[in-house]
Amino acid sequence: MGFVRLVTLGAILAASSIASAEEPAFWKFYEQSLKSAKYIDLTHAFAPVQPVWPGFGPAKFKPAVAGADIEGYVKKGDEFTYEKHGFVASSYELTTDQYGTQLDPPSHWNPKGATISDLPPTFAVRPLVIIDISGKAKTDEGYHLKVSDIEEWEKKHGRIPEGSVVFVRSDWYKKWSEPARFAKAPFPGVSLDALKFLHLERKILFHGHEPLDTDTTPNLEGEYWLMHNNFVQAEGVANLDKVPEAGALVTIGFAKPQGGSGGYARYIAIAPADWSEGVSVNDAPGAPLPEQTAPLKRDKDGVFRPTP
Amino acid sequence: MGFVRLVTLGAILAASSIASAEEPAFWKFYEQSLKSAKYIDLTHAFAPVQPVWPGFGPAKFKPAVAGADIEGYVKKGDEFTYEKHGFVASSYELTTDQYGTQLDPPSHWNPKGATISDLPPTFAVRPLVIIDISGKAKTDEGYHLKVSDIEEWEKKHGRIPEGSVVFVRSDWYKKWSEPARFAKAPFPGVSLDALKFLHLERKILFHGHEPLDTDTTPNLEGEYWLMHNNFVQAEGVANLDKVPEAGALVTIGFAKPQGGSGGYARYIAIAPADWSEGVSVNDAPGAPLPEQTAPLKRDKDGVFRPTP
Repeated sequence: MGFVRLVTLGAILAASSIASAEEPAFWKFYEQSLKSAKYIDLTHAFAPVQPVWPGFGPAKFKPAVAGADIEGYVKKGDEFTYEKHGFVASSYELTTDQYGTQLDPPSHWNPKGATISDLPPTFAVRPLVIIDISGKAKTDEGYHLKVSDIEEWEKKHGRIPEGSVVFVRSDWYKKWSEPARFAKAPFPGVSLDALKFLHLERKILFHGHEPLDTDTTPNLEGEYWLMHNNFVQAEGVANLDKVPEAGALVTIGFAKPQGGSGGYARYIAIAPADWSEGVSVNDAPGAPLPEQTAPLKRDKDGVFRPTP
Repeated sequence: MGFVRLVTLGAILAASSIASAEEPAFWKFYEQSLKSAKYIDLTHAFAPVQPVWPGFGPAKFKPAVAGADIEGYVKKGDEFTYEKHGFVASSYELTTDQYGTQLDPPSHWNPKGATISDLPPTFAVRPLVIIDISGKAKTDEGYHLKVSDIEEWEKKHGRIPEGSVVFVRSDWYKKWSEPARFAKAPFPGVSLDALKFLHLERKILFHGHEPLDTDTTPNLEGEYWLMHNNFVQAEGVANLDKVPEAGALVTIGFAKPQGGSGGYARYIAIAPADWSEGVSVNDAPGAPLPEQTAPLKRDKDGVFRPTP
């Protein structure tokens, strides 16, 4: 029986290696798994009115104007419009890069730290761990993630994978539409001990949280430790209640200004096909995209919105 | 033998389903395939001096200053510095969202088109197809991708996967450091016929090219057609000569301003482990990140650079 099994397994493996020569392994994985997976956006779209640390200012959104005369077409300073030029573009005054859903590189606090454009391409897709403190944060708004919460997660799901992204679910993101309350303590945080455990014992890539700061200590000891030890962190993440605690992947996207000290980021969770939340490629193929219900016009804050 | 084979296959499948109950399938795929894969950044970091369409202006990079007085800590207008405040942040004046490596949503040209914040979360990771016209562009700088080039690719690699991202390699990106030449015709483009074939016959997610425009027709007929048919496109992509023509994945990252008409994007190719270019997670784990060779200081354009 042992011999027959070996021969049979050999035949199966040989057959599967022929199949993979026909279709590349990564494309097969896309066809068989990623296409039917459920995608969940963990990002707040950023806008001129939203929570921000009071020491910074808000962003300004404006129409792009011509930067130079182009003969017979546009004069310097003219706004580009659908009617006159066939297209529009947007212009932004971003008073800070600590805005919206972020990826903080070490250079934000560390003069010798990596900048956003230094991050290697391996910041792309990683295992996603969700540790849920939303129950505790409900009774104590200032609750901070403890090592024991991480140990509890590991009892249920096994050891946190090395190199993974660990997002701390507090449901604080639901207060995004209350800017004054959102950015003010008490809010749910992450203790320095928990950060040290995640990075030094579990060797994660980075952690993220829903508020705009890591903790509520006067010197922001958690962020200080991360940045000075050359770790990055995510802030202002959303929708963690819609993602499985274990088994999802996360894609890590961000704008890449040269030498940037902060990141306008976009995180997407990829959950298994049988997960109840999110959309699959079949649900939302992305091409062609659905049209707006009405033409886009800029609102009083400069934001394009469908406006009947 | 048939019966034995069936029994044996059953035993193997049963064993593998137990294994996958222990380790989620996506995490197993990360451990076994994505961890050893080769990652290649297809993005130009954007900066104040770089190629841009002459009708737009350049970006300005500046230090972030306090937006308000915070008693005993900072006065409105003061620059945040490592020395005084323990951290820095950056401020950007972005006169256009058509800047650097981009993702153009339909609203750029289409008043009823989807904006950048409307893109569904299934814009995350897709199969990546590279069609190489760099040889033809060498002898004819104004060469535009034809349907026959796509057919040639398919003869070698099989049918282009539905929902994939198709980047057109011209090696034009190597002229990025010559801003005046980069943004001026002739440059290698993509013909309208090729775009129609890719979207209507092959149903791709989007295409991308290395120059800042799709083609060199006076009315930009390719971009017009894409945007008015609710397709997106990537512009200013880089390093396509370092990616396999078939078999890689691509992650799609971008900043997410509400209602934005353009995208500051970051694309990462994920090639199989035996690919010669790129870095693996083992090569560049990302935590902790390497330090700069000297402290960061802003150069005359406001860009942070290590400065001895």
